[in-house]
Amino acid sequence: MEKLSKIGSYELLAEPFHCDFSHHLFMGHLGNHLLNAADFHSNDRGYGMTFLNPIHRTWVLSRLAIEMNEMPEAYDRFTVDTWVDAVMRYFTSRNFRISKGSKTIGYGRSIWAMIDTDTRQPVDILNIRNGLITQYVDTDTPCPIEKSSRVKMTETASLVQSIATHYSDVDMNGHINSVKYIEHVLNLWPLEWYRHHFLKRFEIAYVAESHCGDTLNLYQEETGEGEFCVRITKRSNATAEETEVVRSKVKFIKE
Amino acid sequence: MEKLSKIGSYELLAEPFHCDFSHHLFMGHLGNHLLNAADFHSNDRGYGMTFLNPIHRTWVLSRLAIEMNEMPEAYDRFTVDTWVDAVMRYFTSRNFRISKGSKTIGYGRSIWAMIDTDTRQPVDILNIRNGLITQYVDTDTPCPIEKSSRVKMTETASLVQSIATHYSDVDMNGHINSVKYIEHVLNLWPLEWYRHHFLKRFEIAYVAESHCGDTLNLYQEETGEGEFCVRITKRSNATAEETEVVRSKVKFIKE
Repeated sequence: MEKLSKIGSYELLAEPFHCDFSHHLFMGHLGNHLLNAADFHSNDRGYGMTFLNPIHRTWVLSRLAIEMNEMPEAYDRFTVDTWVDAVMRYFTSRNFRISKGSKTIGYGRSIWAMIDTDTRQPVDILNIRNGLITQYVDTDTPCPIEKSSRVKMTETASLVQSIATHYSDVDMNGHINSVKYIEHVLNLWPLEWYRHHFLKRFEIAYVAESHCGDTLNLYQEETGEGEFCVRITKRSNATAEETEVVRSKVKFIKE
Repeated sequence: MEKLSKIGSYELLAEPFHCDFSHHLFMGHLGNHLLNAADFHSNDRGYGMTFLNPIHRTWVLSRLAIEMNEMPEAYDRFTVDTWVDAVMRYFTSRNFRISKGSKTIGYGRSIWAMIDTDTRQPVDILNIRNGLITQYVDTDTPCPIEKSSRVKMTETASLVQSIATHYSDVDMNGHINSVKYIEHVLNLWPLEWYRHHFLKRFEIAYVAESHCGDTLNLYQEETGEGEFCVRITKRSNATAEETEVVRSKVKFIKE
């Protein structure tokens, strides 16, 4: 395999049906583009899903943080650059830069684990192809946004929505799609809110998997000016048990 | 403007997060690709949204029918060809062919109206740029699937789901996104159903617009073997009135 550069670069279009009422790309669709970029980047370099799946391994997204100065508008062409900036035994850190022409409009940070698809247990990333991924670590390119924080919530967070999950929510792994959670979180604010608030930063931590038929409960707490934490739990149909699946932190700026 | 061919051809990728648990592209995402193809095709030929919006006109999708022999699988590259096969004063008919390599895997048919964005009234399509669109009508290329039928439902159709609409459901026109209705309809069947049924044909007629905050009521009726009709009504927050917004017909084949 020809040695590719450490940074993968992907040209994208803000598709009209992926834009909100204000003609800006939905954060969920941007998140989807970042996840695709990660997928393409790792596949092209030999440590992606197409190599991993036959050997019963898969990447699992653990955390994602996106911070934007502006959102692409409908029909805008934009670029997502992505690179791995750190590899540990059980986690990698991958960054993203989103740009429009020569202008950087935002950044992303993500944390990934690798698991055995049979046992669902973490596996040593450095054992894959003799640590091939370490050849592509780029610690020089800056990603000047804060790392994902530990989303702290108190017991006063209130249940604000319960959502049934359906066929369209489920991804190829049989789990609720990572991008759907982003939509669910951002649906907690009414359309009117978005007329006067810019979504500056979106953070999400994937704690556990949920499945089709689970009911998702969303708990919300205001933790600062324009800053909110959201916890999503699942209640399975089989048992009455409530388990945390997602934590998210959202920062809006009043416009 | 250079005269382009009558058929527009668009290369696409079945993105991993756009695929269902069986690793096949969701019908909603395929629908989105067809609508994009229609948009690109008409823009490139001078009668698309980029020309229409400044003169306060827009295309409105009235009907869409998609019939597939197989669905693209994750990471498949596939092609959507689209062409206008008929133009009348108030409606155009646009066809689609979906292919994978040299193999045709499905077709689509759609009906579009044009409206004045100020008055929301239909306008004469043939008045736009002296009927420019008529130069691109292709009546030779076959589209061997049935036209959209009039979806007939009886009063026995039962209310099977009520859905609240949120920020992520709303498109650039401020209406509930056409593609979201496809998801809502297909969510009426449990995941298990899709393990043993192939979605052969999906038809949808957009009767009226619904808005963020409206509650959507879905009524379902089995009208044949594997054939179902679905009516979606809206109940606005302001009035208690229930109005029909969508009719859909779905045909599954047992596998």
